[in-house]
Amino acid sequence: MGTGVRRRMGVEERRQQLIGVALDLFSRRSPDDVSIDEIASAAGISRPLVYHYFPGKLSLYEAALQRASDDLASRFVEPPDGPLGARLLRVMRRYFDFVDEHGPGFAALMRGGPAVGSSATNALIDSVRQAAYVQILSHLGVEKAPARLELVVRSWISLAESTALIWLDGRRIPRAELEVQLVQDFAALAAVSAAQDEEMAALLRGALHQEPAGGPFTDLVTKLLALAT
Amino acid sequence: MGTGVRRRMGVEERRQQLIGVALDLFSRRSPDDVSIDEIASAAGISRPLVYHYFPGKLSLYEAALQRASDDLASRFVEPPDGPLGARLLRVMRRYFDFVDEHGPGFAALMRGGPAVGSSATNALIDSVRQAAYVQILSHLGVEKAPARLELVVRSWISLAESTALIWLDGRRIPRAELEVQLVQDFAALAAVSAAQDEEMAALLRGALHQEPAGGPFTDLVTKLLALAT
Repeated sequence: MGTGVRRRMGVEERRQQLIGVALDLFSRRSPDDVSIDEIASAAGISRPLVYHYFPGKLSLYEAALQRASDDLASRFVEPPDGPLGARLLRVMRRYFDFVDEHGPGFAALMRGGPAVGSSATNALIDSVRQAAYVQILSHLGVEKAPARLELVVRSWISLAESTALIWLDGRRIPRAELEVQLVQDFAALAAVSAAQDEEMAALLRGALHQEPAGGPFTDLVTKLLALAT
Repeated sequence: MGTGVRRRMGVEERRQQLIGVALDLFSRRSPDDVSIDEIASAAGISRPLVYHYFPGKLSLYEAALQRASDDLASRFVEPPDGPLGARLLRVMRRYFDFVDEHGPGFAALMRGGPAVGSSATNALIDSVRQAAYVQILSHLGVEKAPARLELVVRSWISLAESTALIWLDGRRIPRAELEVQLVQDFAALAAVSAAQDEEMAALLRGALHQEPAGGPFTDLVTKLLALAT
């Protein structure tokens, strides 16, 4: 970006290019530390021309965040084929790819820095959580979740967020280990709820009865049984 | 408040009274919906007098939040006596007492509404999380946590936050059930990590070897073994 052949871009094409450039910069550093001048320079255009397309940094940030949100939500989409544990593991791999690609921007956003935390950015974060929630329910074959299942799925999504944030802070644990761990955490949280509630127990048995030996779920049960004895 | 005998208060006494009145109002409704006029009226003083003690609503909000943060952090303090599961359960009961008392304000703060999300409020939230983290480590008898234990404890603290927020949204699950569930979630998340890592397994065995029959941890293991077969 910023070099190469100059040619006239259409309005929408220019907007999309600016969003891409901004998202790249907002991903690599805390959004507070990225200036309009820098975005203009990376896009190879003048600062006033940036303002021609976006009234200010916040609107450009929100547009970049919208693109990132759409991208992240799409990574939770997974064909309903094969065992649940393997599906969730593929989703977690794509999720960590995203977190890896957008690390500093993701951390700044989720930790709620000064420039972020507007109601528009909060609504975008919630829309991704909701998209993830709907996808997970669909893999469980549930349309309308009872309160305890909703709690398990939503609190697990928040666990995936906090696990990713802690991972980003120093990357002291290999991400592949955390991808498996989060899949197993899902089964563990569901099992704790199932231990208290018969409806959850029936749901869990239904969701897990096709798990193959060697999958993340059966692997966990085997290891836990070994730990418990 | 707002009625009763009027008498001259000292500066610090008046500040503390205003903080108490403000915390009560900020707890019952979203802080955005609370006006300085209302705080003045509830404290039985004039609006200009409120501004004499606090330059604006944000500074009063931050002072109220500081008091609430100190209160919440203190609820994680628990004598190091008896089995770990019972200790954590007492902490979770006091935690849900707090969430119950400050529901709407807690939800607005943690969801990051427009008036909140300043760097001062974020620093206060982080200080409570850190106090909770240090307390939990002390109960595990660990001074410097290895990376995997730090992840389990910190992500469990975030799980307690999201579980409380979901509970506040409709209160569809009895809080006593969630208090036990969170204690068992702690053991479950630690067990998932222990299933992958020998150091975590040794820590977990050490922490749980004094658990009595009928405590939240042994209860979970019994029920999970029943589920698995």
